[in-house]
Amino acid sequence: MQNIAILCSGGDVSGMNPALKHFVEYTLQKNLTPYFVYDGYEGLIDNKIEQASYCDVSGIINRGGTKIGSARSQRFMQKKYRDIAKQNLDTLGIEMLVVLGGDGSFRGLDIFYKETGIKFCGIPATIDNDINATDYSLGVDTALNIIKTSIDAIRDTASSFKRAFVIETMGRDCGYLALVSHLTSGSELCLIPEKEYDLKSFEDDFKKQIKNGRKYFIAIVSEGIKQDSSEIAQWFENKIGMESRVSILGHIQRGGNPTIYDRLMAYKFITHAVDGLLAGRDESVICYTKSGFEFNSIEEVTSKTKELDAELLSYLDKP
Amino acid sequence: MQNIAILCSGGDVSGMNPALKHFVEYTLQKNLTPYFVYDGYEGLIDNKIEQASYCDVSGIINRGGTKIGSARSQRFMQKKYRDIAKQNLDTLGIEMLVVLGGDGSFRGLDIFYKETGIKFCGIPATIDNDINATDYSLGVDTALNIIKTSIDAIRDTASSFKRAFVIETMGRDCGYLALVSHLTSGSELCLIPEKEYDLKSFEDDFKKQIKNGRKYFIAIVSEGIKQDSSEIAQWFENKIGMESRVSILGHIQRGGNPTIYDRLMAYKFITHAVDGLLAGRDESVICYTKSGFEFNSIEEVTSKTKELDAELLSYLDKP
Amino acid sequence: MQNIAILCSGGDVSGMNPALKHFVEYTLQKNLTPYFVYDGYEGLIDNKIEQASYCDVSGIINRGGTKIGSARSQRFMQKKYRDIAKQNLDTLGIEMLVVLGGDGSFRGLDIFYKETGIKFCGIPATIDNDINATDYSLGVDTALNIIKTSIDAIRDTASSFKRAFVIETMGRDCGYLALVSHLTSGSELCLIPEKEYDLKSFEDDFKKQIKNGRKYFIAIVSEGIKQDSSEIAQWFENKIGMESRVSILGHIQRGGNPTIYDRLMAYKFITHAVDGLLAGRDESVICYTKSGFEFNSIEEVTSKTKELDAELLSYLDKP
Amino acid sequence: MQNIAILCSGGDVSGMNPALKHFVEYTLQKNLTPYFVYDGYEGLIDNKIEQASYCDVSGIINRGGTKIGSARSQRFMQKKYRDIAKQNLDTLGIEMLVVLGGDGSFRGLDIFYKETGIKFCGIPATIDNDINATDYSLGVDTALNIIKTSIDAIRDTASSFKRAFVIETMGRDCGYLALVSHLTSGSELCLIPEKEYDLKSFEDDFKKQIKNGRKYFIAIVSEGIKQDSSEIAQWFENKIGMESRVSILGHIQRGGNPTIYDRLMAYKFITHAVDGLLAGRDESVICYTKSGFEFNSIEEVTSKTKELDAELLSYLDKP
Repeated sequence: MQNIAILCSGGDVSGMNPALKHFVEYTLQKNLTPYFVYDGYEGLIDNKIEQASYCDVSGIINRGGTKIGSARSQRFMQKKYRDIAKQNLDTLGIEMLVVLGGDGSFRGLDIFYKETGIKFCGIPATIDNDINATDYSLGVDTALNIIKTSIDAIRDTASSFKRAFVIETMGRDCGYLALVSHLTSGSELCLIPEKEYDLKSFEDDFKKQIKNGRKYFIAIVSEGIKQDSSEIAQWFENKIGMESRVSILGHIQRGGNPTIYDRLMAYKFITHAVDGLLAGRDESVICYTKSGFEFNSIEEVTSKTKELDAELLSYLDKP
Repeated sequence: MQNIAILCSGGDVSGMNPALKHFVEYTLQKNLTPYFVYDGYEGLIDNKIEQASYCDVSGIINRGGTKIGSARSQRFMQKKYRDIAKQNLDTLGIEMLVVLGGDGSFRGLDIFYKETGIKFCGIPATIDNDINATDYSLGVDTALNIIKTSIDAIRDTASSFKRAFVIETMGRDCGYLALVSHLTSGSELCLIPEKEYDLKSFEDDFKKQIKNGRKYFIAIVSEGIKQDSSEIAQWFENKIGMESRVSILGHIQRGGNPTIYDRLMAYKFITHAVDGLLAGRDESVICYTKSGFEFNSIEEVTSKTKELDAELLSYLDKP
Repeated sequence: MQNIAILCSGGDVSGMNPALKHFVEYTLQKNLTPYFVYDGYEGLIDNKIEQASYCDVSGIINRGGTKIGSARSQRFMQKKYRDIAKQNLDTLGIEMLVVLGGDGSFRGLDIFYKETGIKFCGIPATIDNDINATDYSLGVDTALNIIKTSIDAIRDTASSFKRAFVIETMGRDCGYLALVSHLTSGSELCLIPEKEYDLKSFEDDFKKQIKNGRKYFIAIVSEGIKQDSSEIAQWFENKIGMESRVSILGHIQRGGNPTIYDRLMAYKFITHAVDGLLAGRDESVICYTKSGFEFNSIEEVTSKTKELDAELLSYLDKP
Repeated sequence: MQNIAILCSGGDVSGMNPALKHFVEYTLQKNLTPYFVYDGYEGLIDNKIEQASYCDVSGIINRGGTKIGSARSQRFMQKKYRDIAKQNLDTLGIEMLVVLGGDGSFRGLDIFYKETGIKFCGIPATIDNDINATDYSLGVDTALNIIKTSIDAIRDTASSFKRAFVIETMGRDCGYLALVSHLTSGSELCLIPEKEYDLKSFEDDFKKQIKNGRKYFIAIVSEGIKQDSSEIAQWFENKIGMESRVSILGHIQRGGNPTIYDRLMAYKFITHAVDGLLAGRDESVICYTKSGFEFNSIEEVTSKTKELDAELLSYLDKP
């Protein structure tokens, strides 16, 4: 009987709880003993590690966030704390680790493995969808559907009141959330870090649209663009001649009942991660690409900046 | 056969569309001819007035905002524009007007009535619930349920990450949205304009709660309080010692599929407004209070600042 | 320090969990010791009674159903089991009981009080809204909003495919859910037990509507009417000449995240119930009527069949 | 300038409206003239074909069903009606057709092409996900998320009341909806047509679970299995000893605001279909598989019964 632990690191996402549930159920079925590490690497250092059972994951499949907490850890960057972490795992006889998180979370892991031999498998989890080598990261679909609900609501009020709305999504340096939200909401403007833009180039067209009867504009902008959302709003007021408002969606994008897609991906990511560890893969990230699930090295995952899907990006030039 | 028109003025709310639908259906049943005035008083001046039919209100009952647009109008404050409005109504033979809006929207109406004899009935509609003489204004229930969804989502992420969240609701000078959201979400702190507060008084208790295991705080604050939401967040960081974030819910509070309560109130408000006009009430607002529906004068509705429900306010001192 | 217990009896409703949360918080603030009785009167007999704390009600405010379970109990009808229940309460020193349930649940209570002196306060809780003497029972608003979501979804498909849909709501002998759903969804037909109907009387009008372009019908029928929903569907096929489908909404009506209205009513019901018990009211039900909250005797609540709100009923004859 | 038409055939799904919107916008950008055919092949025969503009698709992206109607057509099986359809298209100069529907809808198309030379591209659209050669059919993700909401609601009441719930999903002979709903809801039992089962084999385990404290069961069954859902419920009552209820989800599964995934797939399906037609593909179906979008012949799509995804099916034997 082997012991295996799971932890969440970095920003929490919807889908982590379904992943925890399947982790417990699947490892038990494989005759492993599952453990929860609370509060990310911090919990590894502070020995917040507990054996997990069916009861711990009852009723969590429809909850956002993560039951076991997540955190960023400065201490785990230092060898002395990693040594303590190793000690804690040894005491409990834990030799395998599943880590849900972003690329920042994975980097520390590699060093930890080389120092300690603790095998791990990373599962990409971030609403930004900015992890290289995987097309999908857990949490993205739920975040997009929450953004959708907000845009639908704002459209109601925009069309009632003749206003331009500048809606700012999360995404750090990656425009994925903003771009997909644009394509699926029929918004009039989308600005993302991956594409140069010149507001001036939209002016004639937008003014013409107003002349033809358009009563409102919705612009979806990614937090990573050069300008503040308020500057885009100013541009609508000054150059397009339409009253405008900014809506920064903020942290509501993180939470909410996980969608089917995130629940199913959680199920599959966990299955492949556990299967991989049992099959001897000891320092990889389970990725999802067009060819299905595949393991990639930490190096592959963290060395490059993810490029935005070329097909999606090409749509920006289409209607 | 008499002609009757409806318009929306001021901020749009969810519930206006169900009201428009019932307005058309009910006036037709009463052998009146219904008209829509587009874009508030502006449309009255610019003669955007059109006869309405069943087709115009098909498929709108589940839509937020208002199909006929809303607007604020500076021009309607001037007699010369009100004269034009009167002329437009005369041309179409419209003698009765139903107006959905807030108290600002009602004030202009009274003068208009005195000048022109155009009978009207106001229907309170604002998510702020700040109209005197009525316990309920259309749109409040939908706004509260949207806020609820956002708070539920933020709680997921707050509890996963050990953070204090300061959530700012709309409401102008009225704390109703914030207070009810607090009571129904189990948040830890609520700040509203109607109640003096001293953050210092919460410090000992909050620190003690952290010692006892509390991992996150949610504070719901009304936009009308003295401090910026960012100052409250600073206080959590500096005095309570917990990382914090601000979430300004903004315009998502206005939109969304109207709730049952708003749809039913829309139905009843319209029924009573039309019945009242036909029974000879010519310059009143239909209000909803504990004793049911009753007509109040514009004077009564607009002369005083609404006081927050005393029972609700008393709950602020309770757990 | 006094001990006070709460239990849920009969069909569960959304709003029970927010009630449990406020029960614990409010009784603790009043220096009482709160207890949970699990699984209704069955738990009273089987001594499933446990002291409750803040932890027990953390994270339940947005959950449907009831954390402490509900049940129907045949045994509580027999004196020997009530004696055991009394003994269990005595052992724990519990002298006050709050019971969430329908009128069936209240009847047994009265006898229990007379036999044992255990004070109680009933809180009306049933999605059927069929409890006499109170205008509102906990759970109704959430049920209506869930029904709304289903009707909105069915309308999408009905209008796409030229079909008549017969949607059956719960309600036992009370047509409240069906009637309000009808008024707030703009459905074309509503059949409830409280109003005689003759399908024949609709035939000419419905056929004429089809001639004028109507593509679908939605009929909302209460489970308590004389005919099966399938008979109504047959009538659409045979007499109106439109393909039809039946949708029995069933138990999805019971669950779901409680709405603001149900959360707030839960808060108020609990506050008044506990205040009442502390003030010496010992065998009553806290009701909500147009004049606010008031206590009624079990006799008053259970002796008569509730009559459907006359204003609402009158709307059935309107468009 | 070429003319291109779109129609919906067979059961409507969520995602058709976003597809219509992008169809109009994309064809206009490509300098084509878009037409809508109302009510499927019936509209082709009855000449319900109208040129479409931006206005026609404004505000429909968040609506379930299809704005242009769908239908099944017996007449289109007969040559004389197909000749009329051809004539109607000729009169308007329409040479290309995009058809959203299931495999039944595609079969007729092939004959039509051979007879008339009208080029077409089929887009798989059915919530059953039972179309061979494509991994995804439009509407599936929205249907699954609606089912999820219902299961979440039923779980609330099941766990409150100690009951077994048998939830029946759509899917005809395909268990996809039931299987994915099972994996993503953590239900205890899943029965689908693709997998033989013997209820007897679950009895010992289920009884043991009850002894260990389990209070409710949720079984998700596909409409295509051999037994009626009521028989499964009977089995829970008689063999497992737990009160049970059946919930047939029915037509609520078809409607509802399209999810992001369905909106994005609609966007991509349309883009590829129009691009394909312009590139000379004249009698194919655009499919989505692991290798991306690819065109398949009608023969390929309609000749075989789709096999359920082997990986998903294998999960049925796992926890």
